[in-house]
Amino acid sequence: MKRAIENPIITIKDIKPSNPNLKVDGCFNCGATIYNNQTVLLLRIAESANSNGTHVRIPVLNDHNELEIMSIDRLDPMYNFGDSRTISNQFKKVQHLTSLSHFRRAISSDGIHFEIDDKPWIFPHGKMEAWGIEDPRVTRIDGRYLITYTAVSKHGVAVGLIETKDFNTFERKGIILPVDNKDVSIFPEKINGKYYMYHRPVPSDIGYPNMWSAESFDLMHWGNHKLVLTVNEDSWENGRVGGGAPSIKTPKGWLHIYHAATKEYVYQLGAFLTSLDDPTVITHKTCKPILKPETDYEKHGFFGNVVFTCGVILQENLVKIYYGAADDKVCLATIELQELYQLLEPFKRGV
Amino acid sequence: MKRAIENPIITIKDIKPSNPNLKVDGCFNCGATIYNNQTVLLLRIAESANSNGTHVRIPVLNDHNELEIMSIDRLDPMYNFGDSRTISNQFKKVQHLTSLSHFRRAISSDGIHFEIDDKPWIFPHGKMEAWGIEDPRVTRIDGRYLITYTAVSKHGVAVGLIETKDFNTFERKGIILPVDNKDVSIFPEKINGKYYMYHRPVPSDIGYPNMWSAESFDLMHWGNHKLVLTVNEDSWENGRVGGGAPSIKTPKGWLHIYHAATKEYVYQLGAFLTSLDDPTVITHKTCKPILKPETDYEKHGFFGNVVFTCGVILQENLVKIYYGAADDKVCLATIELQELYQLLEPFKRGV
Repeated sequence: MKRAIENPIITIKDIKPSNPNLKVDGCFNCGATIYNNQTVLLLRIAESANSNGTHVRIPVLNDHNELEIMSIDRLDPMYNFGDSRTISNQFKKVQHLTSLSHFRRAISSDGIHFEIDDKPWIFPHGKMEAWGIEDPRVTRIDGRYLITYTAVSKHGVAVGLIETKDFNTFERKGIILPVDNKDVSIFPEKINGKYYMYHRPVPSDIGYPNMWSAESFDLMHWGNHKLVLTVNEDSWENGRVGGGAPSIKTPKGWLHIYHAATKEYVYQLGAFLTSLDDPTVITHKTCKPILKPETDYEKHGFFGNVVFTCGVILQENLVKIYYGAADDKVCLATIELQELYQLLEPFKRGV
Repeated sequence: MKRAIENPIITIKDIKPSNPNLKVDGCFNCGATIYNNQTVLLLRIAESANSNGTHVRIPVLNDHNELEIMSIDRLDPMYNFGDSRTISNQFKKVQHLTSLSHFRRAISSDGIHFEIDDKPWIFPHGKMEAWGIEDPRVTRIDGRYLITYTAVSKHGVAVGLIETKDFNTFERKGIILPVDNKDVSIFPEKINGKYYMYHRPVPSDIGYPNMWSAESFDLMHWGNHKLVLTVNEDSWENGRVGGGAPSIKTPKGWLHIYHAATKEYVYQLGAFLTSLDDPTVITHKTCKPILKPETDYEKHGFFGNVVFTCGVILQENLVKIYYGAADDKVCLATIELQELYQLLEPFKRGV
């Protein structure tokens, strides 16, 4: 992979807070698509309130969909502040997120220099999004754009769907997968009469965070769930695996850029192929990561040692991967499709 | 509730093992319906291998769908044997179940005395069921019977669907909800043009095991997931809540018998009503349990202090609840519909 020399292409300095009481903690994990011949990124903007030495202050939505700032004493023995992203109780159960995320538009002619909205485009709404909306993926399909995203609340991590035709007005389509699930990407066309998605449930008592597929006739109702890729004990994929951006149609099959994390939460990217007829069976996969946290901006940030993608675009045989670095910046890395093919090996592990 | 004087109506003594190497640990949590004017129970039969003083032996399906007996040293410091149902590692992550469950038919003219198959009717099959199939619910709908059940494997706890027209042949319809989810019951008819179910996902990091609804046009693909009932911190419902048998149409609304467990794993039954138009909003609910573990056969068994239902039948205004007692027996308790109405109070807690 070749990192853009302009990296990071968007940082928190480029983002205006949505509210004078908030500060921007991160601009990362963006969906990406082409609209009107321009590159559109849907940025995840994470904002927190100004914490001080004695209290952590966190923004949430209240029951009336109003922003509210909660204040938590850093000395409260109930809580654990060890993870920059969450506040947990003694039993490692997450009680709060430290930030509230929304989506903002960024538009570019060259795919590198972006005009970014001053204000949120999509802000959390309703009890299932009281802790924010995260990690949007954009699929262009049948002349419209579908945005799948993580809806977070005290009830868990669910998957919401939003539709837009013009990146101006949009319509919420409800929760398409219940808790806990995330990393949902919808394929850009029907395959043998059915729509497909990848998703990544997180089981609670048995099993690990693995990648699954599901099928649909209407993009709203999903079934026939199947395991696609499982964590791999002795590798860089031993913690969790999950989908990236919507799969891309190539002459050799459906290409998918996915992420894997180690047990130590180092997030890296890999790629796999399925046949064009059956996206539920991986035929080729990269053995090693194609992108791993190596630069300063990937190793250090809001949550370090993370590269994570929600947005991939194929343009003139160039695979352009927009990725979040260290949970606070947007970066770009590219690779020629022919080069990426060279990294893919026959995949026989099965699930 | 009035317990049948014949309780428990089926015990492990009535069940022949499916294999000479197995012993029956439990016969419980049965689905129930009427077929050809007879009561049909779909029994969950849990079987283990004969463990001894030094080793726990557990049956599983191997990759070739053959029964295999695993043996685990009781002194292995890797494992925790404290729960009779599971074997966990040091991190409380379940590594094995102690038993493998399948489904067996039981048929009766009076609903109390049953003829029970000598052999399994539906045995686990495939990698998603390698640790067994559990807790069937039966819905009669559009002239066929749908069986929703828990498919357990090392990959987690998923929800499978099986269809039968005659309780003889059956067809597997795949996984309709991914891990972790269980307690799925499908409504017996369309409501305003859509099918409905209740389900109970178990989130991993944030939130609690709550009851949700989902909608479908074809019973195979599900969407528009909504929270229906949440755990209630200061009550007998503070550990988990989940659906029971398919809801029953009554003049006052859809009646549902559900279960709740305390944090200490005492499982009890309650009831709620929704309007006939909208099964996603509870209008009335019992404040106290309508059935709790009180008798010796409910307090003691494979896993004590449990009453749990997957099968409820309304016959001539009598609500007949078939329930599992202490995870090893089938029991029956009844209540007149008019009496049950008296226990229901307006429900305003919301979710």
